[in-house]
Amino acid sequence: MGYNNKKKKVALIGCGLIGQSWAVSFLSAGFSVSLFDPTEGVTETAKEKIKEKLDDLQTHGLVKDEKISNFLNQIYLAQSLSEAVQDVIYVQESGPEDLYIKKELTQNIDKVTQENIPIASSTSGIPSSSYAANVAGKSRCIVAHPINPPHLIPAVEIIPAPFTSKIITETVKKIIISMGKKPIELTKETPGFIVNRLQGALLIEAFNLVKDGIASAEEIDKAISEGLGLRWSFMGPFQTIHLNAPEGIKGYVERYEKMYQNMFKDNNFNWSKLVQTGLEQELLNLYKPKDREKHENERNKRLIELLIHKASKVK
Amino acid sequence: MGYNNKKKKVALIGCGLIGQSWAVSFLSAGFSVSLFDPTEGVTETAKEKIKEKLDDLQTHGLVKDEKISNFLNQIYLAQSLSEAVQDVIYVQESGPEDLYIKKELTQNIDKVTQENIPIASSTSGIPSSSYAANVAGKSRCIVAHPINPPHLIPAVEIIPAPFTSKIITETVKKIIISMGKKPIELTKETPGFIVNRLQGALLIEAFNLVKDGIASAEEIDKAISEGLGLRWSFMGPFQTIHLNAPEGIKGYVERYEKMYQNMFKDNNFNWSKLVQTGLEQELLNLYKPKDREKHENERNKRLIELLIHKASKVK
Repeated sequence: MGYNNKKKKVALIGCGLIGQSWAVSFLSAGFSVSLFDPTEGVTETAKEKIKEKLDDLQTHGLVKDEKISNFLNQIYLAQSLSEAVQDVIYVQESGPEDLYIKKELTQNIDKVTQENIPIASSTSGIPSSSYAANVAGKSRCIVAHPINPPHLIPAVEIIPAPFTSKIITETVKKIIISMGKKPIELTKETPGFIVNRLQGALLIEAFNLVKDGIASAEEIDKAISEGLGLRWSFMGPFQTIHLNAPEGIKGYVERYEKMYQNMFKDNNFNWSKLVQTGLEQELLNLYKPKDREKHENERNKRLIELLIHKASKVK
Repeated sequence: MGYNNKKKKVALIGCGLIGQSWAVSFLSAGFSVSLFDPTEGVTETAKEKIKEKLDDLQTHGLVKDEKISNFLNQIYLAQSLSEAVQDVIYVQESGPEDLYIKKELTQNIDKVTQENIPIASSTSGIPSSSYAANVAGKSRCIVAHPINPPHLIPAVEIIPAPFTSKIITETVKKIIISMGKKPIELTKETPGFIVNRLQGALLIEAFNLVKDGIASAEEIDKAISEGLGLRWSFMGPFQTIHLNAPEGIKGYVERYEKMYQNMFKDNNFNWSKLVQTGLEQELLNLYKPKDREKHENERNKRLIELLIHKASKVK
């Protein structure tokens, strides 16, 4: 990939599955990585796993212009935290999902890392304001949460704490983008961030449908993988409904809000009001009414191409 | 497409967007279609729209072996309901989403249609037990609910009423499959069926995130289209979480149920119990533990191919 990241080095602290995937993403974007893990032998194993994943990507032409050995030469196995963070422009911590450990680890990273270098955590649920509040350099602490499998899914949630500096947030976004990944920026911290909240809402309903004997897990899976999931692989839920009524989201909500309210017990929501107070405007700015037909045609074209793509994958 | 549906004719009652899409699906699978709409001129307009959609599919090689004019010759514009249903093996009604109209329309279709021919409705929310309870031939009434845009999305929800005969349900599923579509069979009726319940649960959370100022609609859309939606385009939510923990869904729920419970106010759910009472077993039957590594590799391969496919679509 053609990013201008040569001679830039990042530190990856914690080398389980998540750390390994970060390494693959950084290496294939041209960075050097220095790996550190407190458990002996873990970085050596990680290096092997990183090679396997890079081989995989190369088989599919995703890192075609490089020899794998060139990437592997850009991996440094550090013996200590302070060695790992030397001369890096960025630190990604992927330690255990435990508040106490994360507090201590972040404090230790902060002590040995040069000023103004971002310290991002891969945590899937603990906000920086919980684990970094007492860190001296807390203004450079932030969450950068990847999605499994992290070397393949582009989305990375970026969640600054109220005390995170704007410059750090912007720097982290730029680094994520320079890897070809897509930062999803949250305005505020919230438990579960947004990816797991969206997934959780869908899962709760899926489990309820099984519990109530409405459909089997297999049928529910197909309702997504042969239905809703096709559009969602290139178009989010708001754009989807905005295109599903001739008058856009306003018309969709006028038609269907009542239907959705009748489906759920906890139905004290008022989408119409939200649409009027900014949501419609945001969508109209993103998708101009004059381009509506073009967007519909694009959606259909994308779906057709996705169907052809999927059909070619069936064994 | 190579289905053996030549000389089979279906009636499409109601020729708006949904009826037109059904026509495209039936025609490209080899059926003849007879169109009827009570409003004058609608079937003529529908025929033009059907041609446009078929042209689109042909451009992409989805109906490559046929001349469009051959398909158009298989369209019959009926002047009455009774003319439309003559000699058909199946009736698909796509009338307005209104209980009163649907009741009357179904009764009228039933009166003129030969015995034992299925009468399916495209309704996205009204169960057959509401609109067909007083129809003489109610045992052949069923919902076959497509997803927008219906000529492109494979999933079709099949929802029998308690009074629908098993033979009718099986016949409808076979016809849907013979079009290359994927029937999603519900065991019981429920408001919104399952596709709109799953979509509704996700939308409620998406609207809540906007309302609470956590993220913009644009970021939420990206969290799906660059994140969760990629896996969901070929793998449903249950298979996804089953693969996201080394011990399968049991391990996933042990690890994450608490996290999800902490995210939502209405968190009175017990996934662990459901897992123990059949859900784990269903998933283990579908995805054998011995094939786990194979399934993980397949998921990664599919994701890599999807990313390459998506990258080739970016202008």
